[in-house]
Amino acid sequence: MIDPSRLSLNLMTVDHLGLAEAVERCTNAGIGTVAPWRHQLDGDSARRIRDAGLAVSSLCRGGFFTAPGADDDNRRAVDEAAELGAPVLVLVCGPPTGKDLDAARTTIAAGIERLLPYAADHGVRLGIEPLHPMMVGERSAIVTLGEALALARRFDSPHVGVVVDAYHVFWDPELDHHLAGAAGLIAAYHVCDWLVPTTDLLAGRGLMGDGIIDLPRLTALVEAAGYDGAIEVEVINPALAEVPPDELLADIKARFARIGSAP
Amino acid sequence: MIDPSRLSLNLMTVDHLGLAEAVERCTNAGIGTVAPWRHQLDGDSARRIRDAGLAVSSLCRGGFFTAPGADDDNRRAVDEAAELGAPVLVLVCGPPTGKDLDAARTTIAAGIERLLPYAADHGVRLGIEPLHPMMVGERSAIVTLGEALALARRFDSPHVGVVVDAYHVFWDPELDHHLAGAAGLIAAYHVCDWLVPTTDLLAGRGLMGDGIIDLPRLTALVEAAGYDGAIEVEVINPALAEVPPDELLADIKARFARIGSAP
Repeated sequence: MIDPSRLSLNLMTVDHLGLAEAVERCTNAGIGTVAPWRHQLDGDSARRIRDAGLAVSSLCRGGFFTAPGADDDNRRAVDEAAELGAPVLVLVCGPPTGKDLDAARTTIAAGIERLLPYAADHGVRLGIEPLHPMMVGERSAIVTLGEALALARRFDSPHVGVVVDAYHVFWDPELDHHLAGAAGLIAAYHVCDWLVPTTDLLAGRGLMGDGIIDLPRLTALVEAAGYDGAIEVEVINPALAEVPPDELLADIKARFARIGSAP
Repeated sequence: MIDPSRLSLNLMTVDHLGLAEAVERCTNAGIGTVAPWRHQLDGDSARRIRDAGLAVSSLCRGGFFTAPGADDDNRRAVDEAAELGAPVLVLVCGPPTGKDLDAARTTIAAGIERLLPYAADHGVRLGIEPLHPMMVGERSAIVTLGEALALARRFDSPHVGVVVDAYHVFWDPELDHHLAGAAGLIAAYHVCDWLVPTTDLLAGRGLMGDGIIDLPRLTALVEAAGYDGAIEVEVINPALAEVPPDELLADIKARFARIGSAP
């Protein structure tokens, strides 16, 4: 069984509520940790979360190193993470600017290198998140866990790790191999499910248990790699806005309890 | 420059025409090789293609080893390939039946093993096609070139190889590495392009040059691995049905001429 206190609600799951209501609903539901996205923040968010007694597991997102102005924006993201008390800034690394994936990967590595001292000074760990390969053209040239781990290892720093998101990595035939070598490098673990059929490349994700990801198996591998931190539930699907919020959060808690059980 | 006679039109690109018209249009356009899909065939297709003086580069598809009745259907696919004179039967290997990807991969390997003697007797090579990981839940548990090559190598047979489809593999950070070890194992090479944005998981493919795949680079890697056979243009996109067929085929020929050029 998974300790229920490890549940963190990634607030993109309830983006339709807005941060203030999401914080209130989480408190009422007994969910003690949240992970906001930057567009949900205003000047009052850190105080609001703190006053509600909630912890923050990560801030999403920095990255997009292949875009103009990335350095300034990423330092702001670190500032915001530090203000929230988020131990991890999730990096969505950015797509290639043309057809050259190798060049994009080089640009990304250089961007992380420039950001790292600033993140370390602020006590924020950079979490390199490999995205699903279907997102390579629009969001990230880093699309496998193996590549993200190799990139993280280059820096040999406690302030760089990877984000293992079940949705993005479950298909990989090398997953077991890579997780077996990931000790000390997992900065965050995200769960949701892969629906069959999947009809949307970004927002077609399912609640845990509704798809084909063997979450108990993946969770066991992540734990075997030594990760014992927060587990974020991040489900991006507009259909969730149709569910009454308290019902949705109760459902998420119930499903979360089963991600560590034998199937 | 690519020898234009290496162009084979995968007939899914013009599925809206039907096989008879597609054959006629190819002949008129000076395209000498085609690759049909099984649903396009009737009892007269082999004669029709032969009488038009066209060669066949492959038949799509066998596989779906995780489905009931796969063995019988796959032997029929081999029969059809042999009748067409198709040297290769493309294998789309099938999705997991539940959440167990390892089990699906084992089932797939066993299915290929059972089919192989029949294929060899008929002079048909089985081409294991890794599909894009976004197709894992609905079409194939084999989603990386590395995995397809490892599977093909197990059989150590001239009648098993892999299909390198640019669309399915271009994102892979290990692509160069795997192609460098693929000598003798490439049974077919397919080209199209990855559009940005991509809005459909199956039928959102682009004509060569309209997307972000560095086709000259990939073509050079495939050729360096010793592949000098037909190159199939396979573009699955309903928008192509809106283009006058002769115009579409002329456009495809022009774009094909550039897939071997420096970018």
